[in-house]
Amino acid sequence: MAIIAVLGAGVMASALTNPARDNGHEVRLIGTHLDDEIIASVKQTRVHPVLGVELDAGVKPYYFGEAGDQIAGADVVMVGVNSFGIDWAGEQLARFLHPGQKVLVITKGLQADANGDLHILPHVLQRAVGPLSQQVTWSAIVGPCIAGELAIRRPSCVVFNGEDPESLEYLANLYRTDYYHVWTSTEFIAHEVGAATKNVFAFAQGFAHGILSATNQLDAKYVMYNYSAALFAEGSREIHQFIELLGGDPKVADGLGGVGDMFVTSMGGRNVKAGGLVGAGIPFSQVREVHMRGITLEGVAAIKVIGAALEKLTERGVVAASDFPLVRFLYDLVVRDGKLDIPWDSFFGGHHSLTQAGASAR
Amino acid sequence: MAIIAVLGAGVMASALTNPARDNGHEVRLIGTHLDDEIIASVKQTRVHPVLGVELDAGVKPYYFGEAGDQIAGADVVMVGVNSFGIDWAGEQLARFLHPGQKVLVITKGLQADANGDLHILPHVLQRAVGPLSQQVTWSAIVGPCIAGELAIRRPSCVVFNGEDPESLEYLANLYRTDYYHVWTSTEFIAHEVGAATKNVFAFAQGFAHGILSATNQLDAKYVMYNYSAALFAEGSREIHQFIELLGGDPKVADGLGGVGDMFVTSMGGRNVKAGGLVGAGIPFSQVREVHMRGITLEGVAAIKVIGAALEKLTERGVVAASDFPLVRFLYDLVVRDGKLDIPWDSFFGGHHSLTQAGASAR
Repeated sequence: MAIIAVLGAGVMASALTNPARDNGHEVRLIGTHLDDEIIASVKQTRVHPVLGVELDAGVKPYYFGEAGDQIAGADVVMVGVNSFGIDWAGEQLARFLHPGQKVLVITKGLQADANGDLHILPHVLQRAVGPLSQQVTWSAIVGPCIAGELAIRRPSCVVFNGEDPESLEYLANLYRTDYYHVWTSTEFIAHEVGAATKNVFAFAQGFAHGILSATNQLDAKYVMYNYSAALFAEGSREIHQFIELLGGDPKVADGLGGVGDMFVTSMGGRNVKAGGLVGAGIPFSQVREVHMRGITLEGVAAIKVIGAALEKLTERGVVAASDFPLVRFLYDLVVRDGKLDIPWDSFFGGHHSLTQAGASAR
Repeated sequence: MAIIAVLGAGVMASALTNPARDNGHEVRLIGTHLDDEIIASVKQTRVHPVLGVELDAGVKPYYFGEAGDQIAGADVVMVGVNSFGIDWAGEQLARFLHPGQKVLVITKGLQADANGDLHILPHVLQRAVGPLSQQVTWSAIVGPCIAGELAIRRPSCVVFNGEDPESLEYLANLYRTDYYHVWTSTEFIAHEVGAATKNVFAFAQGFAHGILSATNQLDAKYVMYNYSAALFAEGSREIHQFIELLGGDPKVADGLGGVGDMFVTSMGGRNVKAGGLVGAGIPFSQVREVHMRGITLEGVAAIKVIGAALEKLTERGVVAASDFPLVRFLYDLVVRDGKLDIPWDSFFGGHHSLTQAGASAR
């Protein structure tokens, strides 16, 4: 039996208590200072109020004040905050981690430095932790997994990725069940970049629904799947390119860590909803300030981080101005209230052939 | 102005008359011997009865008896039959083609020879046409495009692929409009293999809906997107592998010709519906003989062709028994009424790591 300390009681961190508990491990679910209501609810009723699902009776809930005591003695420390809390989480890890522990990160995103270079979040945490980061191991979970489905034990396939194969196999075995299927990979950068960038493209998957909704065509015989599929295809292409840009193996995006994850994220959620409002004709600034005020939008956050970084990387000549046309378009939409006028002709390499062998301008 | 003769008046061939007519080209829509009702309807009311949409007033409909006269003098000859008609279409091309014409194929599928080697349909047509095939050019259309959406001029992005860059550019320019966006590529095999195999995986996208439907959970708070996304991811992986097996560039599957096309095909249609019935617990033999009797299921046809070919290719040692686990599973389901017990652990390379660098057995 292993002891797993989970920092952050959000939906994914909490849903992951299922496979860990089903395998008989001790799970200490430690809320952040923002999770007091969740922890109170779990203590009183076992119900996670956001998931709307009862957690296993053996999950041990704690308020943040007990974090230090509960992380001490744990074999595994899961970072379960969202991307907005990553710097805060780094500070806590620096305070509380002990040599020999295995860190398992589920937060998804990228951080850009002043030059526009992008960094995966486990690397951001490592930097925050300092020299101690060499005395623990770093792994992360990616793949198509809606937390609510895991919370009711629906089948899910995911990848545990990281630097240390032994830690990956150890962690995978803590979590593998007949409904939670785990693969392992040392393609750390590729998987983290895929998981972060797929959120960017999920936003675009809301457009068609919004356009159809605003024009009363949601129940029409023919809708706009061709439109969404073209955005999905260009999204896939740009995920592959981002992985390559950051030095990972782009083939990772062929499977769970890329198109599989983008597929599930495209099926719904807050980013798709925000995209739908833009599709319905509402400028994003109004979506942000009125319609979805105060709601966490990790995809939009990723668009802002990555879009701003792309401008710097383009200035420095690291990427061409014609690269990543969909991210640039989404950035314009989100930051400058740009029009929803999809630049189709800039996609798929522009109006050249798709392959060198058949190069031909329009 | 070009003259385009279209052999076959199915939904896609008919929808494609829109961009051609909008660009002012002459379009001769020639029904096969199975299309008499469609041609009669178009002649009388302009309405294509399967699409339920009026075709452009300038489209010229013809019964099959006039095929020879109408193909003579055409610049472009489109093959618009479905995959079941490909051998028949080859015979007609052999009779009616003239040197210098440009053939444009929209039929999707693969044919296997006695050894289990798979062939793209344009190559099947070329063989049927014989020496004359050297005196015409061969191109094809792939990409995420539901015919009904094109029939009402929704935005669509597609790839014209083939052997001859000049013909591709000529054809692309006949069809490019502000709603029909065309890229060109000489990756002929890759695009045709991607388009054929994506139909295989669309069948699997029906399972979750069927399972939820049979258990009255379609409106549940949490459904089964994780399950469908994992199948999508493994489908993507196997499309990439099929392209590689047949000698094409697997990167083609990253975009319109692979995951984009699979995405749109996964959103609905007859193959997804058939998969849904299997998901609801009905053996496929009953789906075929009772629930969907007489209905064309191109995805299922592709599963049968490719699944049978894989058995021969495995015997010959061309592919490993562990390759293509999802296609093999679907083949068992369709041909032998196998159980809907997804072999998750065989996916993504089995329980090894996803990359060589991190190889680790379960």
